[in-house]
Amino acid sequence: MSDVFELATNLIRRRSVTPEDAGCLPLIGERLAGLGFRVEHLRYGEVDNLWATHAASGASAKGPLLVFLGHTDVVPSGPEDQWQSPPFEPVVRDGRLYGRGAADMKGSVAAMVVALERFVSAHPDHPGRVGLLLTSDEEGPTNLDGVRRVAEHFRSTGEHIDWCVVGEPSAKQRLGDLIRVGRRGSLSGTLTVRGVQGHVAYPDKALNPIHAFAPALAALAAERWDSGNADFPPTSFQVSNLNAGTGASNVIPGALHALINFRYSTASTAAELRARTEAILAAHGLNYELEWNLSGEPFLTPAGGRLRDVVVSVCRDLCQLDSEQSTGGGTSDGRFIAPLGAEVVELGPVNATIHKADECVDVAELERLPELYLAICERMLPASA
Amino acid sequence: MSDVFELATNLIRRRSVTPEDAGCLPLIGERLAGLGFRVEHLRYGEVDNLWATHAASGASAKGPLLVFLGHTDVVPSGPEDQWQSPPFEPVVRDGRLYGRGAADMKGSVAAMVVALERFVSAHPDHPGRVGLLLTSDEEGPTNLDGVRRVAEHFRSTGEHIDWCVVGEPSAKQRLGDLIRVGRRGSLSGTLTVRGVQGHVAYPDKALNPIHAFAPALAALAAERWDSGNADFPPTSFQVSNLNAGTGASNVIPGALHALINFRYSTASTAAELRARTEAILAAHGLNYELEWNLSGEPFLTPAGGRLRDVVVSVCRDLCQLDSEQSTGGGTSDGRFIAPLGAEVVELGPVNATIHKADECVDVAELERLPELYLAICERMLPASA
Repeated sequence: MSDVFELATNLIRRRSVTPEDAGCLPLIGERLAGLGFRVEHLRYGEVDNLWATHAASGASAKGPLLVFLGHTDVVPSGPEDQWQSPPFEPVVRDGRLYGRGAADMKGSVAAMVVALERFVSAHPDHPGRVGLLLTSDEEGPTNLDGVRRVAEHFRSTGEHIDWCVVGEPSAKQRLGDLIRVGRRGSLSGTLTVRGVQGHVAYPDKALNPIHAFAPALAALAAERWDSGNADFPPTSFQVSNLNAGTGASNVIPGALHALINFRYSTASTAAELRARTEAILAAHGLNYELEWNLSGEPFLTPAGGRLRDVVVSVCRDLCQLDSEQSTGGGTSDGRFIAPLGAEVVELGPVNATIHKADECVDVAELERLPELYLAICERMLPASA
Repeated sequence: MSDVFELATNLIRRRSVTPEDAGCLPLIGERLAGLGFRVEHLRYGEVDNLWATHAASGASAKGPLLVFLGHTDVVPSGPEDQWQSPPFEPVVRDGRLYGRGAADMKGSVAAMVVALERFVSAHPDHPGRVGLLLTSDEEGPTNLDGVRRVAEHFRSTGEHIDWCVVGEPSAKQRLGDLIRVGRRGSLSGTLTVRGVQGHVAYPDKALNPIHAFAPALAALAAERWDSGNADFPPTSFQVSNLNAGTGASNVIPGALHALINFRYSTASTAAELRARTEAILAAHGLNYELEWNLSGEPFLTPAGGRLRDVVVSVCRDLCQLDSEQSTGGGTSDGRFIAPLGAEVVELGPVNATIHKADECVDVAELERLPELYLAICERMLPASA
């Protein structure tokens, strides 16, 4: 059993559903401390964050800093009977390792740890610093006490990150076929449409908010918000939750509640999207309340950035793939690190099964991932530097 | 304290939330049995139904039969702290009797009992028969074991009802200002629209059933189903419940669930409404399932019916009101009695507070209600007949 496989299964076995950590971070912290890493636990509220850095003994702590970023928390398993095997009992079938977090992202976390161990063992006098930042609050609803807070801490202490490799599962079909060089912004809204409750038999005494909202909903769903740009796909709008009704079939509900979300490109601003949404609601004469939450602005590591070039070259050399350089997909904790001035690139395993039943990672690709991360370390912080 | 007030408060004090009867029906059955009524308890499943009839001693049981129809069950109180006084502790404030069921319809039930008692006491040799049919399963979701079952029983035993007065609260502002001479049909549907679940950041890998349903919903809400006719208001369509989403803001749901309901006039048939609904859903290319439930066909007691004329004359003479003769509002248990060949008219107190917190009935109108019911008995079954 390889180092990375052993650590990945050890982590999957721990029920670290956000914000629980179930001992993942102390386990990793102790391993790295044993290899000479400086390890801090940055604890905010219920949330544990691990910050481990390594510099050659006697070296200045001010050299360039390459950080690997990940999370040990996972989304809930959902109904366990929809899994072929228990979600927190890792098992290999047909060359794939199954378990909640296998792809998102305990496999990458294990690979980062193993790569860092190999790097500092093989290059004890490496230039600059390498670091590992892990949180147990990435998958939760707010992420208030995870990397967001750590980034504030870094800002106040003056810690400067030059390059950041995020281990989020980025690949489509094969490890290395896609890397992320930025992320769209994420703008959420909690919408309440007010009507007047009543009996279905007396619709003239009531105002059905479902009926009132219907044409506005159709207009919002049909709207083309922008066409994207060279770096970003078009902005997408989704209603993720829609609820109205008392459960009784003979009562017209008094209110409708919806959660909406934009994943937006740099072709739009959050302010524009808010204004256009409210204009559509207002044009339909709705009595509504809408509370906005901007959970992440878009970020981009432009072409020509050194980290971006190195990651592309590593994928070409080790995976024989010409990686797609994308800004699609969800947001990531990279959105908190990029504003600190870091180049941020995301490279991780195939994401086809994340957040689903029977989440899995290809065992051969899991075994190769530490080699990729190690190569990034060696090319970013070459011994000759 | 008057007879009707005393009985109404006695009934309100009993927590007879469907299908509980809390002793209401035995109480009434014993009173009527003591006055020579033939009393049957028709028990189906959990549900008690009371069937009490009275004929002059020695008279044929085959004379015309005038029945008063009501229910002793009530809807739940909802949160008790939204009531000014406890819902099952009847109390008078400002000339109104407050309590769950005061208007719907323990007040009418008490008035029916008192009217029948007065009628058989004053006219022991009355022609034909008078009857009281009460159920404890009118307000529940299915009403399977209430008047629906009793009507089947009557059909099998050949019991023929000539006239039926339903005590449902019919009045808008004053007792007698509106009577019901029919009811719309009620057709319900349970709709599931299928999509494909996914992450909001990958909308191309998912199919949001909320977005897919939006234009169909707008079309359904905008549809004019018919214009009604001389006897009925236009058919109305309402979505009473609409639910989609996992609760998580970053998940596109895999399905949307809706409860829909038609209250329909005789200008449309249930089959037409079903077909038109499905045509709209199909025209929008939806992957859906729709399960229909026809809970009541429309019924009508046409102008010129003797009971209808008598009830109108009683309201004119005793209330000095020219009653509106309506087929609006919800459905009622009259829908099960009308198909037996009975003329059905509904007369009861003001319905403004039914199913709400602080349900109440005007005490003066409650006191007058037995006089109206008594006058109907005397005019339908006059001593000279």
